[in-house]
Amino acid sequence: MTTLKLDLGQRSYPIHIGTGLLDQPELFAPHVAGRQAVIVTNTTVEPLYAARLVRTLEALGKQVRTVVLPDGEAYKNWQTLNQIFDSMLSSQADRKTTLVALGGGVVGDMTGFAAACYMRGVPFVQVPTTLLAQVDSSVGGKTGINHPLGKNMIGAFWQPNAVIADVSTLASLPARELAAGMAEVIKHGAIADAEFFAWVEAHIDALNGGDVDALAHAVRRSCEIKASVVARDEREGGLRAILNFGHTFGHAIEAGLGYGAWLHGEAVGCGMVMATDLSCRMGLTPADLTERMAALVAAARLPVKGPALGEDRYIELMHVDKKAEGGEIRFVLLDRLGSAVVTVAPDEALRATLHANV
Amino acid sequence: MTTLKLDLGQRSYPIHIGTGLLDQPELFAPHVAGRQAVIVTNTTVEPLYAARLVRTLEALGKQVRTVVLPDGEAYKNWQTLNQIFDSMLSSQADRKTTLVALGGGVVGDMTGFAAACYMRGVPFVQVPTTLLAQVDSSVGGKTGINHPLGKNMIGAFWQPNAVIADVSTLASLPARELAAGMAEVIKHGAIADAEFFAWVEAHIDALNGGDVDALAHAVRRSCEIKASVVARDEREGGLRAILNFGHTFGHAIEAGLGYGAWLHGEAVGCGMVMATDLSCRMGLTPADLTERMAALVAAARLPVKGPALGEDRYIELMHVDKKAEGGEIRFVLLDRLGSAVVTVAPDEALRATLHANV
Repeated sequence: MTTLKLDLGQRSYPIHIGTGLLDQPELFAPHVAGRQAVIVTNTTVEPLYAARLVRTLEALGKQVRTVVLPDGEAYKNWQTLNQIFDSMLSSQADRKTTLVALGGGVVGDMTGFAAACYMRGVPFVQVPTTLLAQVDSSVGGKTGINHPLGKNMIGAFWQPNAVIADVSTLASLPARELAAGMAEVIKHGAIADAEFFAWVEAHIDALNGGDVDALAHAVRRSCEIKASVVARDEREGGLRAILNFGHTFGHAIEAGLGYGAWLHGEAVGCGMVMATDLSCRMGLTPADLTERMAALVAAARLPVKGPALGEDRYIELMHVDKKAEGGEIRFVLLDRLGSAVVTVAPDEALRATLHANV
Repeated sequence: MTTLKLDLGQRSYPIHIGTGLLDQPELFAPHVAGRQAVIVTNTTVEPLYAARLVRTLEALGKQVRTVVLPDGEAYKNWQTLNQIFDSMLSSQADRKTTLVALGGGVVGDMTGFAAACYMRGVPFVQVPTTLLAQVDSSVGGKTGINHPLGKNMIGAFWQPNAVIADVSTLASLPARELAAGMAEVIKHGAIADAEFFAWVEAHIDALNGGDVDALAHAVRRSCEIKASVVARDEREGGLRAILNFGHTFGHAIEAGLGYGAWLHGEAVGCGMVMATDLSCRMGLTPADLTERMAALVAAARLPVKGPALGEDRYIELMHVDKKAEGGEIRFVLLDRLGSAVVTVAPDEALRATLHANV
């Protein structure tokens, strides 16, 4: 097991990465202070891992309840969130009750938001069981739900008390979801560590094949990079934006096709190829980097060409996505492998990128 | 105008108290950073003050939208909160959009919670128009909504960027609501400042009569006391509990009669008489303090006797209320006028207090 630390002063927390962690009460003990713990999971993960986690928490003398949410992004809404509140209130959960998120990104985001809001804030622990959640969404404290008018529009920054990433759980993950998580692994190399990017290139077959040691290393280095960025910019005032590399194009793909058609990681994989292509066209990086990025994204079994939405529609969708920032589309680009910059892009370069990659 | 400061490091903010403040753009200017402002108010306050506030914000060049909620505690729920989100999302409000709460405690709590959650947090300004909101709920960052299974169960600590308390707006307040706010004024004297308590005793007729200078002083001193407590314990880890003086009995009254039968301040007024009586019975303070408290509460036109719910029912309700704290009922009592302590109470003293004051 490796333990990293996300350094946020009083809100600092450990990230434990290893195998068989679900069964180790001592990892949970320092983070489950009250008498009660509530495991929040979904219908897919519950039959696989909930009983083990219940046993681990009961070994600590906790009263444990389990709330099983329906599985899928479509249920990441207020009604489902309220299932958590209903269960907590009807069992008289108090301010010291700890929520434990057992599942992927949707479960983690919703559990974290429930923890942020229940009695104005209770502790929670992330136990991510997908690669995407282990390398990205469980770390950094972004929580929330969707609104009919926008994804992740209602939420909070609420840091977990610990992240416990048991890489053994990745064995049960469908290949398509493993690939989707790999997009964020590649992203971390691209924006922050060229050597790690090269390591992923060299080990992509082992990673695709579910090699536990390779996956543990990928999770560890990804969490280190993400933790270091979040520690410097918890609330996304500036630097944290670089974690959105590939996401501006990716969100356009997701929104253009309708959310759920492509997995988030699939859209990000393709989006990273586009963003690298744009970086090259703008003269920020040598032209061969696009090929290298496309080769790795393809090797990770992710799409490298965007769906044919039409260039105008892409640009319109990116404008909607970025309205939150005040009008102009700001792209996360690479000025070399392992280093990201946030900048605007000339319209003709953007159109050339879309033309070449759709 | 007087300006106080609530000192919370980076989250510090000014509390402006005076007359005619609604019409002073320069007070709002430093706190409304983005292009858009959204005023949230209710059907009662909107016709009285919204147009003036719109004019003030438009004078700063802001695009201003107004969201009008139904009036009353019964609407302090997710559905009403969603009216705010719907309006913001459909007008593409961005992360710099400032919410402005124009109204009493319910409007302030809901607007603050919407600000805490919209895109994981946007700025907001409190413009309280009731005495209760000016002396208590607008200061300190407690925000939230009710759940069918409990009051204020879903919420956040989210500090406003400023509180702008225009005491001229109290002229439109019904006498019953003015009295309800006075309960919190009396509370601040009781727990923190014997001299201020005596000043309220001496000026209660002027306060009841709506004397603007007297009200401004009462608001100012109340905000000073509350700000000083909150600055030392923002998230209610300990000290902040003293602000709940009278509230344990008060909540039992509100819950026992059904929320809304008595106003919160009426229940707190009566609750403070009970809590003082209990303090005396436990030998913490001289016996004449109960009489003095009852006389002031009565002079403020608030009830001094609790409804006949039965002693057992009171105790049961107080246990439910305090389950959040882990089992035992912890009372905020006075060890002298102007000084509060948090402690448990012997059952027979508690029953004697209920017997004498119901």
